[in-house]
Amino acid sequence: MKKWKNLKPKKQPINDLVKQLRFTAFNARRLGEAVDIMEEMIKDKKCVKFLGLSGALIPAGMRLCVTEMIKRRWVDIIVSTGANITHDLAQCFGEKYEPTNPEKVDDLVLKRKGYNRIFDLLAPVETMATMEKNIQAILNNINEGEYSTFKLLNEIGKQLHDKHSVVKNAQQNNVKIIVPAFVDSILGLQVWINSQTRNIRINEFKDLSYVVNLNLDLKKEGKTTGVIILGGGVPKNFILQSVLIADKPHKYIIQITTDTPHYGGLSGATLKEALSWGKVDEKSLFTTVYCDTTIAFPLIVNSLIERF
Amino acid sequence: MKKWKNLKPKKQPINDLVKQLRFTAFNARRLGEAVDIMEEMIKDKKCVKFLGLSGALIPAGMRLCVTEMIKRRWVDIIVSTGANITHDLAQCFGEKYEPTNPEKVDDLVLKRKGYNRIFDLLAPVETMATMEKNIQAILNNINEGEYSTFKLLNEIGKQLHDKHSVVKNAQQNNVKIIVPAFVDSILGLQVWINSQTRNIRINEFKDLSYVVNLNLDLKKEGKTTGVIILGGGVPKNFILQSVLIADKPHKYIIQITTDTPHYGGLSGATLKEALSWGKVDEKSLFTTVYCDTTIAFPLIVNSLIERF
Amino acid sequence: MKKWKNLKPKKQPINDLVKQLRFTAFNARRLGEAVDIMEEMIKDKKCVKFLGLSGALIPAGMRLCVTEMIKRRWVDIIVSTGANITHDLAQCFGEKYEPTNPEKVDDLVLKRKGYNRIFDLLAPVETMATMEKNIQAILNNINEGEYSTFKLLNEIGKQLHDKHSVVKNAQQNNVKIIVPAFVDSILGLQVWINSQTRNIRINEFKDLSYVVNLNLDLKKEGKTTGVIILGGGVPKNFILQSVLIADKPHKYIIQITTDTPHYGGLSGATLKEALSWGKVDEKSLFTTVYCDTTIAFPLIVNSLIERF
Amino acid sequence: MKKWKNLKPKKQPINDLVKQLRFTAFNARRLGEAVDIMEEMIKDKKCVKFLGLSGALIPAGMRLCVTEMIKRRWVDIIVSTGANITHDLAQCFGEKYEPTNPEKVDDLVLKRKGYNRIFDLLAPVETMATMEKNIQAILNNINEGEYSTFKLLNEIGKQLHDKHSVVKNAQQNNVKIIVPAFVDSILGLQVWINSQTRNIRINEFKDLSYVVNLNLDLKKEGKTTGVIILGGGVPKNFILQSVLIADKPHKYIIQITTDTPHYGGLSGATLKEALSWGKVDEKSLFTTVYCDTTIAFPLIVNSLIERF
Repeated sequence: MKKWKNLKPKKQPINDLVKQLRFTAFNARRLGEAVDIMEEMIKDKKCVKFLGLSGALIPAGMRLCVTEMIKRRWVDIIVSTGANITHDLAQCFGEKYEPTNPEKVDDLVLKRKGYNRIFDLLAPVETMATMEKNIQAILNNINEGEYSTFKLLNEIGKQLHDKHSVVKNAQQNNVKIIVPAFVDSILGLQVWINSQTRNIRINEFKDLSYVVNLNLDLKKEGKTTGVIILGGGVPKNFILQSVLIADKPHKYIIQITTDTPHYGGLSGATLKEALSWGKVDEKSLFTTVYCDTTIAFPLIVNSLIERF
Repeated sequence: MKKWKNLKPKKQPINDLVKQLRFTAFNARRLGEAVDIMEEMIKDKKCVKFLGLSGALIPAGMRLCVTEMIKRRWVDIIVSTGANITHDLAQCFGEKYEPTNPEKVDDLVLKRKGYNRIFDLLAPVETMATMEKNIQAILNNINEGEYSTFKLLNEIGKQLHDKHSVVKNAQQNNVKIIVPAFVDSILGLQVWINSQTRNIRINEFKDLSYVVNLNLDLKKEGKTTGVIILGGGVPKNFILQSVLIADKPHKYIIQITTDTPHYGGLSGATLKEALSWGKVDEKSLFTTVYCDTTIAFPLIVNSLIERF
Repeated sequence: MKKWKNLKPKKQPINDLVKQLRFTAFNARRLGEAVDIMEEMIKDKKCVKFLGLSGALIPAGMRLCVTEMIKRRWVDIIVSTGANITHDLAQCFGEKYEPTNPEKVDDLVLKRKGYNRIFDLLAPVETMATMEKNIQAILNNINEGEYSTFKLLNEIGKQLHDKHSVVKNAQQNNVKIIVPAFVDSILGLQVWINSQTRNIRINEFKDLSYVVNLNLDLKKEGKTTGVIILGGGVPKNFILQSVLIADKPHKYIIQITTDTPHYGGLSGATLKEALSWGKVDEKSLFTTVYCDTTIAFPLIVNSLIERF
Repeated sequence: MKKWKNLKPKKQPINDLVKQLRFTAFNARRLGEAVDIMEEMIKDKKCVKFLGLSGALIPAGMRLCVTEMIKRRWVDIIVSTGANITHDLAQCFGEKYEPTNPEKVDDLVLKRKGYNRIFDLLAPVETMATMEKNIQAILNNINEGEYSTFKLLNEIGKQLHDKHSVVKNAQQNNVKIIVPAFVDSILGLQVWINSQTRNIRINEFKDLSYVVNLNLDLKKEGKTTGVIILGGGVPKNFILQSVLIADKPHKYIIQITTDTPHYGGLSGATLKEALSWGKVDEKSLFTTVYCDTTIAFPLIVNSLIERF
């Protein structure tokens, strides 16, 4: 079975290194396991795949990794914070960040100079304003009515032209993007502003209906679900909770997080705890990698690109 | 100004200890500062006070601390995860937890025995079912229509009889409870179930309208806002974001969290970073205490009880 | 047995609050358990008690909490980093710290102004120089020869006059202080400097002999050991390792730490892991509280003062 | 200058990925910077290079990464915990670990079956016993006398035959290994046992003399020092402190750690804090990567292999 081995450094492709990690320990081993689980999940043609996005992944440069997963259909449903979608849209309209050193920066000066800081990134206020103007134009082109978040984002996607965009690629590849805390984002504020003059409404029960019915259908059809959780937060809870009514555990779950179990919150909770809730069961394959997503996620995606 | 002193242990009231912490270092000092900031905030009659709740605080026994704050009007608006409100309702209908040791527990056995595990607590599935039955009865008594989350919770509160309940006390004291990721909770699922047969709709834009207009009004009136963030997640972001349109920084913020700044996510972000966004300004009083809320929050509430 | 209860905030002594924590969850519950375990340990007249000190506890204002434990004989052997002992000595000769804000401070300016920074404390270089001069005078009064670290610190203690000093109180109460990484501290550097002109030698094997033989003796006499670990690092490992040769597990262990288990290091390792090594056994009472020591330790000491 | 870019996943060598990380954010960017700093440090022929080892890196499969660095002379002085050296020796005599799942394992059963657990690794007690027998034989071949830890390990290295061994390779390449908390390890216990019958003594002041004089000499010669810190603990403090007497800051420092700054301890302290102590200065190049070493270290070593 699984063996222990000293890792052998040399000039080698990323996937060769990741395969070796499987035989080491701690979070390196878990990273190796995570890629193996994802490989199995991708090969499983009966598996509908969720991707949870939290943390500032899109500003942090992970946009093309997500897009790649969409293009290759390694994901069917994205559940995201509003902020990541907001930044994907902002990049469609020219947003670029500037690196900074969080230990040296004076945030009052930044405020004056027109920068919002995201840890070690500066987002110019003016590109955010450009995004807002553009998003209002797009919203004005969308028919009045009541929308699920995934339907609204699909409509927005149709009007985007950035081939690297998560929202655009999702629309083109029929991948749904659900944002459960929609009002909790700049995008949510923009749609709310639009709703002050036009009859645009968000009904998140439509998102909920979709995932609950999907799980009921999959259960009937003997199909299954898999999950990649980047971060924790609402996307994690929403994806895990989505199987409760169908009482159909997820078959595959990998979680990349820097939160910790021992403070009792859900973001850091072990997937073993999810066994008691029936969100996974004893046949599920799952692992948690405690690592900054900006390091682990590119390794995972690059390794899988080599495997497929 | 501020001095350094060795803390002197002895038989003493909690507040006396907390006052000494101010002169030590690390998170003890910050805890002392947090209570001082809250004292000032409570004394400021022109300040509208937000409380953000994330993490499993209600199951963890912190319910009466929240209720105490409501009764004393130390809070005007609560922004919470759905899970905390779900558990407050469950306790109204008899939910009690059983302590467990997460290092020894077998989650598959728990599943069989009918327990959901929350780190070191067991929540019996049957009391959750009791809650669901009761909440459906309550929802059936509520007029059909479209609700903000705070209005729906106010209606639910009217039908509760548990004098310790957060939702009940909020209703009685005119404290609003906003749940931005409403669908992301068992309560959300229950309202969704109800909505399958009755015309009950949630419109979170109403919640957003309320907080945006509140901030615009407060700015006009020369009033201000203060914030207590327990945990991070959506409640933190929602409260901080609520001032953006009015461009009126929060005057007081304390944050108790176990998340960390150096992974770049918002839950762990420093409040200094919020300066660049205009969510606080140079005259704001703020501090972050890195500590399990279950330890820091009772110390804070007990100290404040002694001070007022 | 153990029940769950919502904590009731009110004006109350510290110990009353801590007793309630026992019935809550997460690290609050563990803090309650830790004090109960320490109460039992202190009452156990057959128990020799270790205290491990790491992290900058003495600069952080925890000096009198340690001294109180020594005076009350709640500890028999202290195992410490050199830094904590260095700062105890520095305080004997007038060292005082100045509070600072680590987010605003310019470390190059500090360097110029003569301050060493310890996170949010400033230690003036000149008081360190005063300490060094005084410690050389003390060392010059000590007979040449080879010393265990505890014997050398005992000799130093005899020459101190600060009634709040950990080293002084340890000497007066026959409490041994062992510093396994003695050379890794300013004190170590000072003794090394002294050793360049006088024949002063440190032999840590004498420290090791003492703890190994102590454990062998205790085993023969049917006596036992208990441990309080503040932080992790070398003091934790040294104390746990000390029982290996006698093959006599510690009976009581509490650990206060902010390190985490899931990165595989010993500082964050669970005490359950110590079962496999025989450092504790199934009859041992142990718990780990994940909390900044500056918050948890004063609560523990104050509660115990009320209990005894 | 430094730009921001979305990372582009594809089939590519490790170094190409790591070079892209430089333009992202959070700890990915820092990892990219760390490799660039190390590249510069390695090219700097006037730089003496320290490597600090803490955490269970050798059991975790990182042995050959360390060995590779020794062989390529990317390191001149290793400062390590005793445990890592103990396990390097144990592997010389056949120690192999078995992977385990820390969430499922029963540590009492392990104890009975003869396994010591290191998080998710099992170390058989019998291979540890084999190591102890062998190390006694080796020690008995070593001349009686007083040794620095690096000199003793050099003598041990001469008698090893495992070409993958850190201690062996260090001896062959004239790399010094210093273990400041020597008594705090199984190896320390074994040497202590040997010292009960033979006149083998450890004098850590000799280690201290070596590093202090080295820094004084380097200063005179206009040479410099660089540091790679894996973990924190005593190795970090010892290496940083070693420049104090010479008052000669380190020129390069990279630190890989999972500890955090905001609890005030040295392991997690920022390198910016070290500016105030003069351990680095404004011309020093330094960065801290918050990441499990088992993930970051192989990426660093593999990238550097491609660069040289």
